[in-house]
Amino acid sequence: MTFQELFGIELPIIQAPMAGYQGSAMAVAVSNAGGLGSLPCAMLSLQAMQTELTAIRAGTAKPFNVNFFCHATPEIDSEREAAWRKLLQPYLEEFGIDLGDAPAPARTPFSAAAADVLAAFKPAVVSFHFGLPAADLVKRAKEWGSKVLSSATTVEEALWLERRGVDAIIAQGFEAGGHRGIFLSEDLSTQVGTFALLPQIARAVRVPVIAAGGIADAKGVAAAMVLGAAGVQPGTAYLLCPEATTSAVHRAALQSDRAAHTALTNLFTGRPARGIVNRLMADLSPINAAAPAFPLAGAALAALRKKAESLGKGDFSPLWCGQNASGCRAIPAAALTRSLAG
Amino acid sequence: MTFQELFGIELPIIQAPMAGYQGSAMAVAVSNAGGLGSLPCAMLSLQAMQTELTAIRAGTAKPFNVNFFCHATPEIDSEREAAWRKLLQPYLEEFGIDLGDAPAPARTPFSAAAADVLAAFKPAVVSFHFGLPAADLVKRAKEWGSKVLSSATTVEEALWLERRGVDAIIAQGFEAGGHRGIFLSEDLSTQVGTFALLPQIARAVRVPVIAAGGIADAKGVAAAMVLGAAGVQPGTAYLLCPEATTSAVHRAALQSDRAAHTALTNLFTGRPARGIVNRLMADLSPINAAAPAFPLAGAALAALRKKAESLGKGDFSPLWCGQNASGCRAIPAAALTRSLAG
Repeated sequence: MTFQELFGIELPIIQAPMAGYQGSAMAVAVSNAGGLGSLPCAMLSLQAMQTELTAIRAGTAKPFNVNFFCHATPEIDSEREAAWRKLLQPYLEEFGIDLGDAPAPARTPFSAAAADVLAAFKPAVVSFHFGLPAADLVKRAKEWGSKVLSSATTVEEALWLERRGVDAIIAQGFEAGGHRGIFLSEDLSTQVGTFALLPQIARAVRVPVIAAGGIADAKGVAAAMVLGAAGVQPGTAYLLCPEATTSAVHRAALQSDRAAHTALTNLFTGRPARGIVNRLMADLSPINAAAPAFPLAGAALAALRKKAESLGKGDFSPLWCGQNASGCRAIPAAALTRSLAG
Repeated sequence: MTFQELFGIELPIIQAPMAGYQGSAMAVAVSNAGGLGSLPCAMLSLQAMQTELTAIRAGTAKPFNVNFFCHATPEIDSEREAAWRKLLQPYLEEFGIDLGDAPAPARTPFSAAAADVLAAFKPAVVSFHFGLPAADLVKRAKEWGSKVLSSATTVEEALWLERRGVDAIIAQGFEAGGHRGIFLSEDLSTQVGTFALLPQIARAVRVPVIAAGGIADAKGVAAAMVLGAAGVQPGTAYLLCPEATTSAVHRAALQSDRAAHTALTNLFTGRPARGIVNRLMADLSPINAAAPAFPLAGAALAALRKKAESLGKGDFSPLWCGQNASGCRAIPAAALTRSLAG
């Protein structure tokens, strides 16, 4: 069975789910173009999720993907939180911000309640990041007919996912923008470039492998296929599309020379993610042990980010971006999807 | 002009020069097989270099490459040296080693004296690592007809090299084993995976681009070509060949599961290089600011490494290896070269 047959789509392209940067409009556009559009749910309330899923169903009859994070929600560590706020204090003063109580964590993991909402929509594909949720939740998704995907950043993670019955594995190379799916280790030296990761995962597992990380155009898609991919999942390339909700400061950074220098950083959420190096990353170093556990780090930054963005500055924003921004184009997502498929 | 025409060879394969792990035998075998064999000179005295070059001339009439490092030799910083020895003290005691005076640095940069030796051989290709030597030395190599190569780890480095007249650029992806060629920065977050680096360098420069990092087999070579490479420079794949001087502990590590976890480390020489994670790297963390400047860090480790290797342990050895060791095969270098070419 080909990748396209497995998912019931025409093109071997999954649009990477990008929580906070796109919703149903992007998913509809990509699915209608023959790719697999994705709805990221990590930052949606159950009600917002319901609304977005309804919008997708209204916008397309084609298959689509619904994506969830599946981290364990951490206890708030007040000592670490205080240390983090102390580190941010100079910026808070600079912008005249009084944090008050910490806002709630902005990202929630997949849950039984989310599965209840999802069950009414029975999406063709459900994908997870940071491993998999509890086995009974995976089972539910499979029972209503969804294909289940998750990301692997090492061969070990790919084998772990295959043993738990995923239908396909996303090989997320070091180059990829946004959150790394790493879940069996916290050691970032285990992270492998796409060119090395993809063929090794493709050789190690029997399920189809989807390449992510550094894929910017049709040549990148073709090269991934040569290395053993059944399909690809580009993300960064979609960030300038009109359907993306990417902020103005983020769009400007993606189109500037600054996009050439990204780094893995835990400052914005507590988990390593790749973004364009900005003031906060330069000042505190991209990886800083003081950042609270995922997803708590982001809470104290929210007000700072909002204020700075209102002044046209991305100094405190996660400017997610992979190591190859050359494929970013301000064209409709449908046209970009067809262009990627070549 | 094709890559093969530029260098006068049949196959688009340059065997990566691996100082300390191979000499003339490997270069002769690869060149006779139709690739471009390489002689690494960073760890050779002028006399040894003369001997090896004579052996290559005797073994093949085909083009070959001679490789040099071009770092600035640092002053010995006795305070840093003392701190480094203190860090190594527990190991020195464990193995009953008295270091005495520090041995001389084991790696020397390209020099006028080296150029004098080289002039008599006029190799088809001279390649450099860590940028380029002084302009007059590059000019000498060009005057006797050599094509000049160097490695770029970022688009910025590629443009720098092109402006200085190199004939081709090696795009060294994050996945590559051994020393990183990085020379315009010391910030390792600038390092880009092959899948993202290669097409961006290929688009930025007019000279041919040679891909390095993660290329383990003919499919990898084909994928690199799709991404814009004119040729490839695999290294790790050659480490098990009978012509390689790779130690027994290193060969064993390359063939074990341990090869799946490499990291960039400055512990063995003072500059970042990729190797299999071993005891020293696990204990001191792969990157440690106490390590003396390149190439001095290695001096204090030499006796420790020798003693441990004699006991069958690679705990203190640089087990250089890229992120894809799947192409390592204990077959003659000629057969491996043909197999890579597909």
